[in-house]
Amino acid sequence: MPHIALQEGLPGILGPMAFRPETTKPLNELADILLRGPSTLTPAERELIGTYVSSQNDCMFCQTIHGAVAAHHLGGDEQLVLDVKHDFGNAQISRKLKALLAIAGLVQRGGKQVRAEDIEVARQEGATDLEIHDTVLIAASFCMFNRYVDGLATWAPTDLDLYRQRAGRLAEMGYRKSTESILAATVAAP
Amino acid sequence: MPHIALQEGLPGILGPMAFRPETTKPLNELADILLRGPSTLTPAERELIGTYVSSQNDCMFCQTIHGAVAAHHLGGDEQLVLDVKHDFGNAQISRKLKALLAIAGLVQRGGKQVRAEDIEVARQEGATDLEIHDTVLIAASFCMFNRYVDGLATWAPTDLDLYRQRAGRLAEMGYRKSTESILAATVAAP
Repeated sequence: MPHIALQEGLPGILGPMAFRPETTKPLNELADILLRGPSTLTPAERELIGTYVSSQNDCMFCQTIHGAVAAHHLGGDEQLVLDVKHDFGNAQISRKLKALLAIAGLVQRGGKQVRAEDIEVARQEGATDLEIHDTVLIAASFCMFNRYVDGLATWAPTDLDLYRQRAGRLAEMGYRKSTESILAATVAAP
Repeated sequence: MPHIALQEGLPGILGPMAFRPETTKPLNELADILLRGPSTLTPAERELIGTYVSSQNDCMFCQTIHGAVAAHHLGGDEQLVLDVKHDFGNAQISRKLKALLAIAGLVQRGGKQVRAEDIEVARQEGATDLEIHDTVLIAASFCMFNRYVDGLATWAPTDLDLYRQRAGRLAEMGYRKSTESILAATVAAP
């Protein structure tokens, strides 16, 4: 049961987002810019970074929904998402993404964990300053989203098809528009 | 030295904020709503929550600047800020704020650390659902801001007067406006 009175039936972050629309707006804008905005990192790569950090933070809702969005961008390759979560060093991904995931994992443990040599490895694999910046901020923002979702003890559905369906809408519409359409429909319901 | 090429002379979060203006906008909007928007928690109480979480995350820049903003709101009482950081249970603050700081400290360790009984303590001290929600999101957002600042190894000035001066501007203008005015002046400089 959630720690505060949230509207029933809204999974994960949607409960607190419906509860506090003022903060929902910048939170979704941040997610849209970082995960879907113009970038030399693909949407799949950025969702994998968020999924990995969420799995390290043991946040079931976030790792499942962002894992589903990543898989959607990867043409349905759910196995690759599992491989990244469990052992990204041996997953079928680029060496650059592995170096960025290593940085994200350090950020998850704490900002001061990131050393110059970790950045240097990413740079040698071709990562730009902007890609390194965005990796750090994606990892940091998921440390926020994960704590928001779990710190209020929100509901995480167990039906994976529900995440797959929502992932399709998120991938097509983006975070702000998808959230607004769901919350508008919920408020309009009897 | 910062991990990526940031403009010199910009302390803490201002370096990455100048580097990536797109994400700066929602980050400052979030801070303004949570720390300065309409709330039954005073700006000082909310800044103390952010300061405490930043100190638990060992983020020198964030705990010093938000501690200075809290002290500004408290009429210059820097000792109270130190007391909250070092042992809030014995600080001269309300029992409700102590209960909210306890929740914030649990969120800092991880969302799942917050138990129903911790929420119940806050509720018995008069905390509302909105105050509990905002405490969780303030704590979660500082876990992002702290990692953003330290994960990029930004510069934290050691001159406390610099923080006091900026705290005065932040308290008067807010986060978005103050940041925009500093970055505009920096860009305009030769």
